[in-house]
Amino acid sequence: MLKEFTAQDVRSAYVRIADFVRRTSLEDSVYLNDEYHRYRFKLESQQLGKSFKIRGALNTLAQLPRTQIERGVGTISTGNHGIAVSYACRLLGIENCVVIVPYGTPRPKLDRIRFYGARVMTMGNSYEDALTLGLNYIDRHELFYVDPGDADPRVYAGQGTVGFEIMTVHPKVDTIVVPMGSGGLITGIAVAAKSINPDVRIVGVQTAACPAVARSLADGIPYTHYPTMGHTICEAVVGGIGRLAYQMLPDLIDQIVIVSEESILDAMCFMAIEEQCVIEGGSAMVVAAVREHQDLVGGSDIALVITGGNVDGDMLHAALDARLKRD
Amino acid sequence: MLKEFTAQDVRSAYVRIADFVRRTSLEDSVYLNDEYHRYRFKLESQQLGKSFKIRGALNTLAQLPRTQIERGVGTISTGNHGIAVSYACRLLGIENCVVIVPYGTPRPKLDRIRFYGARVMTMGNSYEDALTLGLNYIDRHELFYVDPGDADPRVYAGQGTVGFEIMTVHPKVDTIVVPMGSGGLITGIAVAAKSINPDVRIVGVQTAACPAVARSLADGIPYTHYPTMGHTICEAVVGGIGRLAYQMLPDLIDQIVIVSEESILDAMCFMAIEEQCVIEGGSAMVVAAVREHQDLVGGSDIALVITGGNVDGDMLHAALDARLKRD
Repeated sequence: MLKEFTAQDVRSAYVRIADFVRRTSLEDSVYLNDEYHRYRFKLESQQLGKSFKIRGALNTLAQLPRTQIERGVGTISTGNHGIAVSYACRLLGIENCVVIVPYGTPRPKLDRIRFYGARVMTMGNSYEDALTLGLNYIDRHELFYVDPGDADPRVYAGQGTVGFEIMTVHPKVDTIVVPMGSGGLITGIAVAAKSINPDVRIVGVQTAACPAVARSLADGIPYTHYPTMGHTICEAVVGGIGRLAYQMLPDLIDQIVIVSEESILDAMCFMAIEEQCVIEGGSAMVVAAVREHQDLVGGSDIALVITGGNVDGDMLHAALDARLKRD
Repeated sequence: MLKEFTAQDVRSAYVRIADFVRRTSLEDSVYLNDEYHRYRFKLESQQLGKSFKIRGALNTLAQLPRTQIERGVGTISTGNHGIAVSYACRLLGIENCVVIVPYGTPRPKLDRIRFYGARVMTMGNSYEDALTLGLNYIDRHELFYVDPGDADPRVYAGQGTVGFEIMTVHPKVDTIVVPMGSGGLITGIAVAAKSINPDVRIVGVQTAACPAVARSLADGIPYTHYPTMGHTICEAVVGGIGRLAYQMLPDLIDQIVIVSEESILDAMCFMAIEEQCVIEGGSAMVVAAVREHQDLVGGSDIALVITGGNVDGDMLHAALDARLKRD
C-alpha cells in the first residue's frame, strides 16, 4: 500500500502554494448551457506555465529540506510537467534543476522549460527510454525526483487544490469533469471536492486512443504503461495509470466517459472558434464528453476542468483546417 | 473644454470595480526578451468578456442614480464594448439594457452580447448609421447612453485602472505600450501610471490602415470620424479619436508607432504559435511595434497591453494559413 493523502493534505497544500499560483477563473460557457445544464470552465490553461501541473510541483518542492534544495532536483517530461517543475524551481529559488526529455520533444516546450531556468538534457528516443536513463542520472547525482503523478502524495495533494478552488468559489457545483492521464489530477480533485460536498459527482474522461485508467479500473490491473493506439491529439494525457491513483480512485470516481479522437478534434475547434478559448487536446476531451455523452456526464451545475493551454500551432491549424473542410 | 479626470478618479474607479473585474496577469514573454529588454504582457484578453472594456462600463454604470438604473441603459457597438456593457449590467443588476448593432455584426459577438442579458437591436448598415439611429432610439426611450470612450471621464477613469494595476504590481516598468483606437485606454493608463511614476514612457500604437489618433495629434484637428484605408484585421480599433483623448493626450503620450497590417497579421501568428496566446488584431499591434520598431518603443522593462481576446475563428485560421504559406 502506498501512502495516501487526505483532504487535510490538500488544504495544507493550498496554504503552501496559494501565494504562488493563480486562482484561475471559472468561466461560464456561452454555447454549452441549456435550460437544465450550466457548464463552467475551470481555466487552468491560464495557470502559471499554462497548465495545472505547477500546483503539484510547488507543493512537493516547497517541502524539501534545505540540503536537498542545495543538491538540486530533476524530472523526466515531454512537456507540461517539465515546464511546471522549471517554473516552480524559479519561484522557490532552487538553482539546480534538470529536466530530462526524449529526442524529438517540440521546440516550444524546450524553450519554455529553459526559459524558466532549468537545464534541459536529451536522452532516449521515447518517454519510456528517457525515463529509464533519466532516473538513473537523477539517482547518480543525488537529485530529488519530482514525480509527475505516480506515487507521491504531495503531488496529488497539490493538484487537488483545483477541486478545492472550484468548490469554495461555487459550492453549488454538483459535477466535476476531469481529463485523465495518469489519474493524478482527478484523484486529488475528488478527495478535495468530496470533503466539501460528499455528493459531488466526479467524472473522468479519456481518449479511446489510450484509455489506461478506464481499463485499469475495469480489469483490476494497474496498467502503469499503456500503448497508444493510432494517432492522438492528446499527447499530454497518454501513458499509464499512476499507482496511487489506481489505489484510491475506485472509491472516488463516479463515472468514466471515453471519447473518440474525432470528437476531441471537433471539441478543440468548437472551443477555439465558438467559445474563443484555445486549449490542449487533452483538455478538449471534457468538452467532447459533454457534446457527445451529455447523459453520461450528468449533473446540472457542472465544472469542466480545462487542464492546459500549451497548444502546438500546427495542431491548432490542422484542427481549424479540418473544421473548414467539413463545414 | 470637456470635463477631465485625474489619477484620483482612477483610484476611486478601482475601488468601485475591483470586486467585479479580474486583476489580470502580467506574463513574461518567452520570445521577445533579450539582454536589454524585458517584455511583459498585460493580459486583458483574459478579462471578463475577454477585453478591458468592462472596466470603463462598470465604473460608469456603478455611479448611475437608481431612477436611471430603473429606466435602463443603451449603447451602440459592433463588439467588445457591447459585450462589456451587457456584462456590466448583469453584474450590477441593471435589467433593461439595449445594445444597438449594425447589420452584418458577426454572430459570435451577438451571441455574447445576448448571453450576458442585453437585448440586441439591429439598425443601419454601418457603425456610423447604427450610431445615428441608435442615439435617437436611446434618447427617445430616456436610456442612459454608455459612452465607448469619447467624452465621458468615468469611462476613461475606468479604463485607466489597467495602468494602475501594472504600476502597482511591477513598479519598475518604465514603458507601457498601448493599442490606440479612440485613444480612451491610453489616456486612462497614462494618467494613472504617470501619477505613480512621472517618468514612465507611454507609447501608443496604431495600424497604418486607420491612424486616426496619430493624424489628429499631428494635424491638431480632432478627427472624430476617420476612414479605414483597405482591409484591416484590427476591426476593434478603427474609427475616430475620442474628444477627451484629443484634449488630454498631447500632455501624456511620449511616442506613437504606426505598424503595417502585414506586420500585425504576422504578430498575431507569432503570439498564437510561439507565445501560445490567442489575441485580437488590435492587440497584436503592440507586439508588431516591438518586433518592427524596437528602437521607437524603447525602454528596458516594458508592459505590452493586450486589450482583447475575442478572435474570429476565420481570421485566426487565415493568419495561420498565411504563415504556413510563407514559411
